[in-house]
Amino acid sequence: MPERHLHLNAFLMGVGHHEAAWRHPLTDAAALPDVRHFRNLARIAEHGTFDSVFLADGVQVWGDIEHTAAQVFEPITLLTAIAGATSHIGLIATVSTSYSEPYNVARWFSSLDHISGGRAGWNIVTTAGDRSAQNFSRDAAADHAERYERAAEFVDITNRLWDSWDAGALVVDKRTGVYADPGKVRELGHTGRFYQVRGPLNSIRSPQGRPLLVQAGSSEDGKTFAAQHAEAVFTAHQTLDSAKAFYTDLKARVTEQGRDRDAVKVLPGIVPVLGATQAEADRLARELDELIVPVRAVRQLSEMIGVDLTGHPLDRRLPQLPPVQRVNGAKSRFELVRDLAERERLTLRQILSRLGGGRGHQVVAGTPDTITDHIQTWFEQGAADGFNVMPPLLPHGLEQFVETVVPRLRDRGLFRTHYTGSTLRDHYGLSNLAPAAV
Amino acid sequence: MPERHLHLNAFLMGVGHHEAAWRHPLTDAAALPDVRHFRNLARIAEHGTFDSVFLADGVQVWGDIEHTAAQVFEPITLLTAIAGATSHIGLIATVSTSYSEPYNVARWFSSLDHISGGRAGWNIVTTAGDRSAQNFSRDAAADHAERYERAAEFVDITNRLWDSWDAGALVVDKRTGVYADPGKVRELGHTGRFYQVRGPLNSIRSPQGRPLLVQAGSSEDGKTFAAQHAEAVFTAHQTLDSAKAFYTDLKARVTEQGRDRDAVKVLPGIVPVLGATQAEADRLARELDELIVPVRAVRQLSEMIGVDLTGHPLDRRLPQLPPVQRVNGAKSRFELVRDLAERERLTLRQILSRLGGGRGHQVVAGTPDTITDHIQTWFEQGAADGFNVMPPLLPHGLEQFVETVVPRLRDRGLFRTHYTGSTLRDHYGLSNLAPAAV
Repeated sequence: MPERHLHLNAFLMGVGHHEAAWRHPLTDAAALPDVRHFRNLARIAEHGTFDSVFLADGVQVWGDIEHTAAQVFEPITLLTAIAGATSHIGLIATVSTSYSEPYNVARWFSSLDHISGGRAGWNIVTTAGDRSAQNFSRDAAADHAERYERAAEFVDITNRLWDSWDAGALVVDKRTGVYADPGKVRELGHTGRFYQVRGPLNSIRSPQGRPLLVQAGSSEDGKTFAAQHAEAVFTAHQTLDSAKAFYTDLKARVTEQGRDRDAVKVLPGIVPVLGATQAEADRLARELDELIVPVRAVRQLSEMIGVDLTGHPLDRRLPQLPPVQRVNGAKSRFELVRDLAERERLTLRQILSRLGGGRGHQVVAGTPDTITDHIQTWFEQGAADGFNVMPPLLPHGLEQFVETVVPRLRDRGLFRTHYTGSTLRDHYGLSNLAPAAV
Repeated sequence: MPERHLHLNAFLMGVGHHEAAWRHPLTDAAALPDVRHFRNLARIAEHGTFDSVFLADGVQVWGDIEHTAAQVFEPITLLTAIAGATSHIGLIATVSTSYSEPYNVARWFSSLDHISGGRAGWNIVTTAGDRSAQNFSRDAAADHAERYERAAEFVDITNRLWDSWDAGALVVDKRTGVYADPGKVRELGHTGRFYQVRGPLNSIRSPQGRPLLVQAGSSEDGKTFAAQHAEAVFTAHQTLDSAKAFYTDLKARVTEQGRDRDAVKVLPGIVPVLGATQAEADRLARELDELIVPVRAVRQLSEMIGVDLTGHPLDRRLPQLPPVQRVNGAKSRFELVRDLAERERLTLRQILSRLGGGRGHQVVAGTPDTITDHIQTWFEQGAADGFNVMPPLLPHGLEQFVETVVPRLRDRGLFRTHYTGSTLRDHYGLSNLAPAAV
């Protein structure tokens, strides 16, 4: 086996990543509010020796309630429920730095890390959108730069809270009554632009110390943040060239920060639409596209890129979009959509179909062999350290991937055959690069 | 069996409620950071058909790190982990209204209720103490009255968020692509003194609709709040008379609010120190008291009542305490300590011993028969609808209670022999009094 191995994350989303997954005959829409469905997904991914499972999150109801499979679970609680049904796989939860307190967030991840025996990861996001802000006593979201400044201070605080109890702080001497060494427990005394936090955390150091830190924004601010703080990056690319450029740029930024380039793993998203033959895969892709409800898809696209397209004719090309500097939402996703529309001269309807599978992540329809080839190519050509796997239908597509693609990746020596460590940091090969357990 | 039945809640705290529990030979101090210990406790309580398990919480490290068994878990995550290891027992988490956002708190409990199949309960607290405030970008805690005003607005919002999706809102028609009926999902448009929350919640209605609402403060503000919002009240009393007066007063306030008096269950705390004989029980109580570290206990008492007693000689009576109006901390616990000290003319050392078992909750050392008698007396004389059971050692004391006291309560027709419902509201007999699933 070569020294460098793929990392695979299973991105869990309802009954599938395709926006119309719940309508397809292969899914059980009644599974959406059922924790057993998610436990089952995690077990399938763990059977496939994935590094981790991952949950996205938002803090508002999305535009089209009528045609959207509703969110049910909050990620930290759902991953805690999954922890009890699994033994090795990492558990990565999205939590926003925009509308929670650092002390609370540090506690949730510390608690999840204790409960799971060192398998917690945090996908650090900032929250765009006034509608979310309005659930948190604000009229409008802070601007993009300020959101990232807040996030940087936030993570600095949570890191120091997780480090506030040394690994050797516990004494636990029944005879003398000494439980801990107060000299190994520190206050932070943090005073910054956004927060004042005294500390220490009211929990002992967790198995990993800090959860794995993940980041998913690919804007300038996002890449700067990732280079400083992240240990894994989820990113969306439609082409190999785009992914290679991002990969090269991010690794250079990581090195500039004085960090080891391997200390950050880059995982583009992939929506594998699998079939025993190419025709079968294409047929599934077509079936899914035909289930898209255009009125819903236009509203979601409008919210995603922060530009109202609800009046635009479906069979016309996209209107001229504003310059990215004027966009205050998810900048990298905006650019991806703009580039896709311009490069391929797509109508709005075609754009909806291209985005329906993975909201901007690449959709690859093919056989197990072609999808394995695709993964290997991106991995070996400097576009990816691994993949964020987003099956269009769940559990169906994840089962297919584990049964047909994972064995091929193993046969080619690209992916582990069994877990060699017990923590999420172990799986991502970051144990030696992790913060020291002082 | 008589119509009225006892309700029993198992208050889980580390390896026991006695402050020196971790030092006693019957406990395993290494179990404190181990989720399996807590899953085991919940299974024992479920075997004893308890209504619920409960976790307290705080958002700071307590004064004496050296001699205090450290907190490890955050309650919502720990109860989520427990949910997967149990099937019926209710899961009550303490979350403060002082330093979290209503939208986030509503999500956590909704998620726990979905995960557990309708077993979530929320012990609503406000957080006193400047040290906690300093973990949340504030110099000092808000005053007592303002904390309760904030809590009332907070709970009004979370109730409306939980009600923002009707039970019948889901359509889930694969053919037409209609997932939900937007007419059955409502915004709140809340604008109050402390919060603005647009809504709706980003989760469908959970099995119970709302979690069971629990309250544990017994001050004037606390009782007013409980009469308006609570469905169960945890309270601390040292004497039958004090408990009866509280019970009568609270039920009257509930009726004044236009609510059914049975819609609120009152559960005083009890620390049962069990022995096969009275001598054996007394010996265990003595063993535990001898393990108290006075310097630690004085600091904890000082923090609990908001009065610095660290310089006071152990064998002198307590100094004159300030009037309760001047206290900005936990007023009811302050009054309990003052009354105990004055009524029984106790020295500081004697006070520490009386509080060491249960931090103000009554400690009853006795045989299974005498403790069963005690419970029956309080239940039948109008002092309690049930008990918040706080074993001095865990799991030992909970096992004893389930093996020796529960069968006696069942034999006397006072307590259930099996679960007749599946939700926490079912167990507390509140299903018919619960908010309608519109």
